[in-house]
Amino acid sequence: MTQTPVSPTRPSFTILGTGALGGFYGSRLLVGGADVRFIARSDLAVIRRDGLRIDSPLGDRVHCPVAVYADRDPIPRSDVVVIALKTTENHRLAELLRPLVHQGTILLNLQNGLTMEEELAAAFPMARILGGVCFLCSNKVGPGHIVHLDYGAVGLAPFDERDRGLLEPLIAAFAAGGIKAEALPSLQLARWRKLAWNIPFNGLSVLLGADTDELIGDPVARRLAERLIGEVAEAAAACGCPFAEGFVTTLLDQTEKMTPYAPSMHLDYLAKRALEIEYMYRRPLREAARKGRELPAIATIADQLTYLDRRNRATD
Amino acid sequence: MTQTPVSPTRPSFTILGTGALGGFYGSRLLVGGADVRFIARSDLAVIRRDGLRIDSPLGDRVHCPVAVYADRDPIPRSDVVVIALKTTENHRLAELLRPLVHQGTILLNLQNGLTMEEELAAAFPMARILGGVCFLCSNKVGPGHIVHLDYGAVGLAPFDERDRGLLEPLIAAFAAGGIKAEALPSLQLARWRKLAWNIPFNGLSVLLGADTDELIGDPVARRLAERLIGEVAEAAAACGCPFAEGFVTTLLDQTEKMTPYAPSMHLDYLAKRALEIEYMYRRPLREAARKGRELPAIATIADQLTYLDRRNRATD
Repeated sequence: MTQTPVSPTRPSFTILGTGALGGFYGSRLLVGGADVRFIARSDLAVIRRDGLRIDSPLGDRVHCPVAVYADRDPIPRSDVVVIALKTTENHRLAELLRPLVHQGTILLNLQNGLTMEEELAAAFPMARILGGVCFLCSNKVGPGHIVHLDYGAVGLAPFDERDRGLLEPLIAAFAAGGIKAEALPSLQLARWRKLAWNIPFNGLSVLLGADTDELIGDPVARRLAERLIGEVAEAAAACGCPFAEGFVTTLLDQTEKMTPYAPSMHLDYLAKRALEIEYMYRRPLREAARKGRELPAIATIADQLTYLDRRNRATD
Repeated sequence: MTQTPVSPTRPSFTILGTGALGGFYGSRLLVGGADVRFIARSDLAVIRRDGLRIDSPLGDRVHCPVAVYADRDPIPRSDVVVIALKTTENHRLAELLRPLVHQGTILLNLQNGLTMEEELAAAFPMARILGGVCFLCSNKVGPGHIVHLDYGAVGLAPFDERDRGLLEPLIAAFAAGGIKAEALPSLQLARWRKLAWNIPFNGLSVLLGADTDELIGDPVARRLAERLIGEVAEAAAACGCPFAEGFVTTLLDQTEKMTPYAPSMHLDYLAKRALEIEYMYRRPLREAARKGRELPAIATIADQLTYLDRRNRATD
């Protein structure tokens, strides 16, 4: 039973969430010549007036005018809807997507965490679901103003292997905008590999008030990160996605060589924004539990984060 | 092979460490009529000049003059040396004790943690080792000035069961000073039971910046405390000291009914003093590991505390 993928050679895009991630990738797709619409909320008026500004080593850009919409506006149908909201907004994601998804619409999820694509597939059976993992260091510094600092590569994979044929035109669209995109052999493995970085370094950056270079450079914090990564590896293997030998060592080596970096959760915490605990910690804990695995170190930091997140926003 | 315990009916005491704990209990022993010498360091000059002041619901006292010594002074021999230093000073404990310990000297250790008595027994085979667990809420508010807030009961047990006969005159000396002291059936069990409170509530008070009432009143922090207590219970059982059924529930209920309380580690952290991580966390982890038990949640918070403690004192 095969399913013929709809594979437009020059896909059009709607970017849901015009922040540090969505604004950056949308800009690169525009630069590459794609038709791109943006959905914005708090920055809508500024972007309408002044355009979308991206400062980047790839070249500074101001897209003005730019096709930007409120989420309740009627929006032209696109081949691809890119989900670039934080997972803390996922309670309203289905509602936001409903007017954007038609038979065969490609949903490209760029969020961090686990099980987002399962939920999209359940809510939108008429859509084709892809996932992407982004290696991007980018911050929103003001309304409609994004500063891209470093990196930018994207790894893409289909949620359902029968949709693998959809990747090629997307990879081409990213490449046209100067973004190195590649097809990954397994979305689930890619998600778990990303968690192997996100779970220790996002959480510990908040709990210890430290950036990646301070954590990786301290023997005790590094050992703690390794303990957490070990639990991620165990859970990934239990869920059918074993890490290759040497993966953890490489991950730590790469982190050691990174430019000092404040993980997004640390920035969110300092700005008193909601933390992405549910999809980054609770879902991996739940999936591991379904395979009979407890992850006590991860559960410990998840509970600490939940407590601090609640208090952090309560005292705002 | 029996050993006849030396059991003076009116023992004399040297209190090593005239802080919130040693100052308080030494004062109560004085009030009860015992011969008590104090060893002080930073507060020595003030205590010599103004005496030792204890504000307490048991009655305010100023002991002036009082027998107070520097640790290098020649000190009259006492029957009992009470160890009331923080365990963060244990690297110099043997040196401090050497001039105080003679054949048959009773060493009464009132520190929190695990394995202190094993170390004393190894270093001082000519001594009789007792351990005490104190339920005391007391703070040093200035040099030689201690405020006793609440509680004060002491549980006593010998390190070597053949020394159980030593307990009675000590219990009488405490009782004469208004302190409820009782003989406990097992020192190791008492130490593990105390850790079941200290490990969660001391550590989390630092990591979450919260006092006991805030922790126990929050469902997520309480669940986290329960996870840590569960690991203590597991380790205690593996080490031959299983908790009685219902112990954990009672512990949490009692904590819930306590007056809001800043655990000593939280106060130490805020004052940028060294934290008692080694004996309160590392030794239990080590003892459990010797029995083949990993305690991943406790190891996780111990590493966090080590990192924060080091940074806290480095930036002083």
